[in-house]
Amino acid sequence: MNKKAYALLEHYMCSCMEDSAHDKEHIYRVLYNALEIAGTEENVNYDILIAACLLHDIGRKEQYENPALCHARIGGEKAYCFLTENGFAPEYARQVEQCIRTHRYRRDEQPQSLEAKILFDADKLDVAGAIGMARTLIYKGAVAEPLYSVSADGIVLNGENDAKPSFFQEYKYKLEKLYDRFYTRRATELAKERQQNAVDFYNALYRETSMSYQYGRNELEKQLE
Amino acid sequence: MNKKAYALLEHYMCSCMEDSAHDKEHIYRVLYNALEIAGTEENVNYDILIAACLLHDIGRKEQYENPALCHARIGGEKAYCFLTENGFAPEYARQVEQCIRTHRYRRDEQPQSLEAKILFDADKLDVAGAIGMARTLIYKGAVAEPLYSVSADGIVLNGENDAKPSFFQEYKYKLEKLYDRFYTRRATELAKERQQNAVDFYNALYRETSMSYQYGRNELEKQLE
Repeated sequence: MNKKAYALLEHYMCSCMEDSAHDKEHIYRVLYNALEIAGTEENVNYDILIAACLLHDIGRKEQYENPALCHARIGGEKAYCFLTENGFAPEYARQVEQCIRTHRYRRDEQPQSLEAKILFDADKLDVAGAIGMARTLIYKGAVAEPLYSVSADGIVLNGENDAKPSFFQEYKYKLEKLYDRFYTRRATELAKERQQNAVDFYNALYRETSMSYQYGRNELEKQLE
Repeated sequence: MNKKAYALLEHYMCSCMEDSAHDKEHIYRVLYNALEIAGTEENVNYDILIAACLLHDIGRKEQYENPALCHARIGGEKAYCFLTENGFAPEYARQVEQCIRTHRYRRDEQPQSLEAKILFDADKLDVAGAIGMARTLIYKGAVAEPLYSVSADGIVLNGENDAKPSFFQEYKYKLEKLYDRFYTRRATELAKERQQNAVDFYNALYRETSMSYQYGRNELEKQLE
């Protein structure tokens, strides 16, 4: 890709980004992850990969405003329109669209091309490790969801089989389980390198909070006549 | 304190709480921390301590709506009014107010009574360790601030001497430095037990992000003609 094309796509991407869990730094991390994965694969089309990374979340705003919409589909369509309107070949725009369309975690449509698989993995890497924990917490703050739920008798729930949305629930439901779901070898390696950071943080947070509730509930019982 | 008084204060507290970094679970954690600290101190007045813990953040909403206001002062005043209106003695209400007034990290007014020192420490404990990191991230999401800033040449800034608000900046400016600022021995011990959890998480997050940018920026340079 030439620098002019990169600058055009980057500028369009920046104009579409908003919330701080999916801000433009997420896009750069995904792009950099993708380049790291691509370095270990053969016959990668970097023109497709770089465009798909830059534009993969441009449909976020539409999904945020109307949760019935899927940001991957909307984003794919927006990317196709933007690219063809700016003189890129329709076949190229279609391949970029296809990568974006299949980058979501939910597996209704799986990534087919090598570039689509790399984008998928690069995006999932940004939910792994400490960065995944940090982004999920930032997101929970933005949508005003709590760290954890508490049972009727005042015990901190660990998130397992927890119906109510919380950070612990998201960790058990999604973050803990993603490490064997990558398509490429290098992404799997990178994710495994980061995995312990997430596990350690969850364990520390659960220990700190649950011990405090356990001790405190007993002590309060004693103090209240 | 009797159960009826506790229920009255708890109900009023719940009616005042909003954002998810200062939701009612923060209040319970502070109360439980305070009871743990109080267990190692002598001559604690639990009626003052429990009321001060429950009501310490009831001025948050006013500060949120008008940042020129101080939630500790407003909260103290609201607590005094609520307590005296509900038949508690003015001298008792004044002592609770004084604890709430001095619980803030900023040191313009320092806590004087034992109960005020315990509340201060219990509240600061909720900014220590993994729970402090998680709450700060939730807060950054709520106010739409980023994880870190990036220099003009694409390097992740570690937060040190960083003028722009971000999670890394808050960590270096405040979270990293709080461990020797407690008044009570037990709070200092509890904070030190949690300290490594915060350090480990910051280091992991900085390592994951800065390495990705470093590698990615170089690789991108090579790919752009």
